[in-house]
Amino acid sequence: KTIDLNCDFGERFGVYRLGQEEILSYVTSVNIACGFHAGDPLVMRETVQLAIRHGVAIGAHPGFPDLLGFGRRMMAVSPEEVYAYVVYQIGALSAFVKAEGGVMTHVKPHGALYNMAATDAALAKAVAKAVRDVDPGLVLYGLAGSELIRAGQAHGLRTASEAFADRTYQADGTLTPRNRREAVIVDEEKAIRQVLMIVRERRVRSVQGTEVAIDADTICVHGDNEQAVRFARRLHAALQNEGIAVRPISPIDKAAGGT
Amino acid sequence: KTIDLNCDFGERFGVYRLGQEEILSYVTSVNIACGFHAGDPLVMRETVQLAIRHGVAIGAHPGFPDLLGFGRRMMAVSPEEVYAYVVYQIGALSAFVKAEGGVMTHVKPHGALYNMAATDAALAKAVAKAVRDVDPGLVLYGLAGSELIRAGQAHGLRTASEAFADRTYQADGTLTPRNRREAVIVDEEKAIRQVLMIVRERRVRSVQGTEVAIDADTICVHGDNEQAVRFARRLHAALQNEGIAVRPISPIDKAAGGT
Amino acid sequence: KTIDLNCDFGERFGVYRLGQEEILSYVTSVNIACGFHAGDPLVMRETVQLAIRHGVAIGAHPGFPDLLGFGRRMMAVSPEEVYAYVVYQIGALSAFVKAEGGVMTHVKPHGALYNMAATDAALAKAVAKAVRDVDPGLVLYGLAGSELIRAGQAHGLRTASEAFADRTYQADGTLTPRNRREAVIVDEEKAIRQVLMIVRERRVRSVQGTEVAIDADTICVHGDNEQAVRFARRLHAALQNEGIAVRPISPIDKAAGGT
Amino acid sequence: KTIDLNCDFGERFGVYRLGQEEILSYVTSVNIACGFHAGDPLVMRETVQLAIRHGVAIGAHPGFPDLLGFGRRMMAVSPEEVYAYVVYQIGALSAFVKAEGGVMTHVKPHGALYNMAATDAALAKAVAKAVRDVDPGLVLYGLAGSELIRAGQAHGLRTASEAFADRTYQADGTLTPRNRREAVIVDEEKAIRQVLMIVRERRVRSVQGTEVAIDADTICVHGDNEQAVRFARRLHAALQNEGIAVRPISPIDKAAGGT
Repeated sequence: KTIDLNCDFGERFGVYRLGQEEILSYVTSVNIACGFHAGDPLVMRETVQLAIRHGVAIGAHPGFPDLLGFGRRMMAVSPEEVYAYVVYQIGALSAFVKAEGGVMTHVKPHGALYNMAATDAALAKAVAKAVRDVDPGLVLYGLAGSELIRAGQAHGLRTASEAFADRTYQADGTLTPRNRREAVIVDEEKAIRQVLMIVRERRVRSVQGTEVAIDADTICVHGDNEQAVRFARRLHAALQNEGIAVRPISPIDKAAGGT
Repeated sequence: KTIDLNCDFGERFGVYRLGQEEILSYVTSVNIACGFHAGDPLVMRETVQLAIRHGVAIGAHPGFPDLLGFGRRMMAVSPEEVYAYVVYQIGALSAFVKAEGGVMTHVKPHGALYNMAATDAALAKAVAKAVRDVDPGLVLYGLAGSELIRAGQAHGLRTASEAFADRTYQADGTLTPRNRREAVIVDEEKAIRQVLMIVRERRVRSVQGTEVAIDADTICVHGDNEQAVRFARRLHAALQNEGIAVRPISPIDKAAGGT
Repeated sequence: KTIDLNCDFGERFGVYRLGQEEILSYVTSVNIACGFHAGDPLVMRETVQLAIRHGVAIGAHPGFPDLLGFGRRMMAVSPEEVYAYVVYQIGALSAFVKAEGGVMTHVKPHGALYNMAATDAALAKAVAKAVRDVDPGLVLYGLAGSELIRAGQAHGLRTASEAFADRTYQADGTLTPRNRREAVIVDEEKAIRQVLMIVRERRVRSVQGTEVAIDADTICVHGDNEQAVRFARRLHAALQNEGIAVRPISPIDKAAGGT
Repeated sequence: KTIDLNCDFGERFGVYRLGQEEILSYVTSVNIACGFHAGDPLVMRETVQLAIRHGVAIGAHPGFPDLLGFGRRMMAVSPEEVYAYVVYQIGALSAFVKAEGGVMTHVKPHGALYNMAATDAALAKAVAKAVRDVDPGLVLYGLAGSELIRAGQAHGLRTASEAFADRTYQADGTLTPRNRREAVIVDEEKAIRQVLMIVRERRVRSVQGTEVAIDADTICVHGDNEQAVRFARRLHAALQNEGIAVRPISPIDKAAGGT
């Protein structure tokens, strides 16, 4: 059994700091902000250099053009706008990856774009088309069971279904909405058990108590504060203890092609 | 004898219009704004589609992150910042070019970045290094005789020295600064004669009356209003009448490689 | 009978043009963009100077922080965000008005903020509270019959109910959504008749054929192209021919107080 | 003897943090970022509330429209642009101050604008005119002995000459440029001694060893990290130990008028 651990990274902007470099020791893939919701050209370059140095898989993390809202606010964007935003951001990051001699392996939409593309088929299609048009070798990360995963498959992309360590699931397999009290798993032991169950049994226990099938290729962890990094370290150790290989979706040395 | 005619294009933003599509009939290369001083992802996509349709060579036109000032204001940027800005913008545009099945052939810095890189060796080097690191097959456009051309050559890039139809030259071969009354050539006949002399004799008559050597591969024309487009049409016709082939620096079908 | 004619103005940005100055001859109030969806500090200053010169009432036209989308895209903003955006923009414009020796008389939200505040009571309350907290003497413009008008009244503000010359109405008094074919009135004669009926009879004929009560203090016209300006001139003349006084909500010389 | 201690505050943006609230216990004036180089509407509101709660004098801290460079990069701006940027930002902040029932007392330009206005008479004049046009009761903060102080006086403004605790001075009274090794005073004891000498003797010892006259109404301290806050606490205590009253330039309760 194998699993990928991914986290968002490179979310600094100008003088502003965010994120702990140490997280790169515990994840196998990073999603790098591309300047729309966070990140700036200098930050992107340094982040790509760090990712290459730590040997983690590099992905683009395109978001909405909403620095003020950190790309977390839903916006009434058209599929054409989403397509263009994703093409633009993948391209910008890919140039840094190329300049540093690395390879880009995947794309994971950020924040509100991730959430909207999970349920809105037209936006999901726009994201998938953008990824395919720029580089069909890129892996598309999306919420397990979402429209985005379906769109990726329909566009011939390899997809990575994502599950969450610290979020609860409903009986129908969807995430419990964030505004619910029980949406987040605070107990680290419980979060680790959830991940182990997802990886080994391809099932998750819902808040209703039922077991639901879930197909996860990658687990989302966070690196923005020290507590999050500690949890990632614990989770990484727990997975290894159980004989589960923590590794990226694609072997990095023969990753996506020409971009 | 051959010459390239280039113009900046795709300088719209959001609801705002700028530029006349008709210019694409008279130039052989366009420099496409990449979202920093002008342009946005939707505009870039449409501009690339137009350029491909008209068969003109496509170049990136990176500028300073100053939409409010249209990239025309000098900023005290470091070479590291310039490097990162140029890599970012080339990458962003290249993704649209790739998605549309075209090829990117060149890079021409915009506005204050163009001017600063003409005289500041450290910034010129940063631009040249950025271009080379992303794609060494790209042609670097710069002011004839400038630091930018020297830096491009030093980095192993093919360069295109640019001359101006509507600007006067000093006895030392530099452009007359814009704040001087005689900086701009208003008389279209005179502007056309200047271009013909530059192309045929590799010389230009300075405001002091002397003749100065100038080595030009490309002539800069403008497409932002109808008068500019009319002039471009006249210039194009005059060049053809004189048996001068108007064509891009690189044949487009075997243009720069993998980006 | 009297009516105010208002239009959005000052929607240029940097080098980009938008709007026809001539519209200032036919309207009695202008809503000036404050730098979020359009406008920039230089533009705001010039626009305020123009408005004072033409003797039209000056209002703030706050929008979403979405220059790329011209403030027309709905965003999932909180009431706290909306409150702060409106306070900020009113303040910014009021400083120019004060510096030029004018008075600010009103506030009209722009685009998606206008539409969202028309139906979302929490956002409407946030806008009304922002206006009152900065200057309770300001008149709040909003869609006739909307939540925004109700919120303005609840906060003790004088309100101006707005009707549209070129939009059709439903039997329940709401505007026909823009995505419907019949949403916009193209026939200028028909648009003028609608305005005259609204002003004289306080009624409008719905697309269903029924007559609906409507309470309008101001009519929205446009100034972004020559055709729009021509229509405003015709409408202004038609109103005067019918003995209807076209004048601002508050007499400008004793307009809102200390801001 | 009295002195004002001022610090920049409210330099957060969106999700990004910067600055320690504790600094408000040791300073008597704060300069609040207005959304151009840092700050956003929500941050400005909270910052004004904090400042009022702590009873410190509130000033606007206008900067260049360069969030990416934190307003620290010199830009080739015209006096007209500077005037409009300063009017805009003072207005935006003043609306929050008014909404919270406070008073704005002063304006201190930020970063590159502060530095450029210290030596460029045309820009200094633009800043002073902007302050006067919006509210002639505001105190203009500037580098002691600078063009900005002169311009403020010429425009009839009350000015506050600023000296630095942690910067060294040249024999001609100017600050040692930041790129020199000896520009910054790292030794806290030495920095405190410099402030005491400035306040009591109106003199400072230059790096050349001579004593230079300096006229300081306010001392600049920093609040962006814990060490800076500790220093401010020590400096505040040292001043009080020496019988020097630490208090704002204007008594806050009868501060600047109608804005």
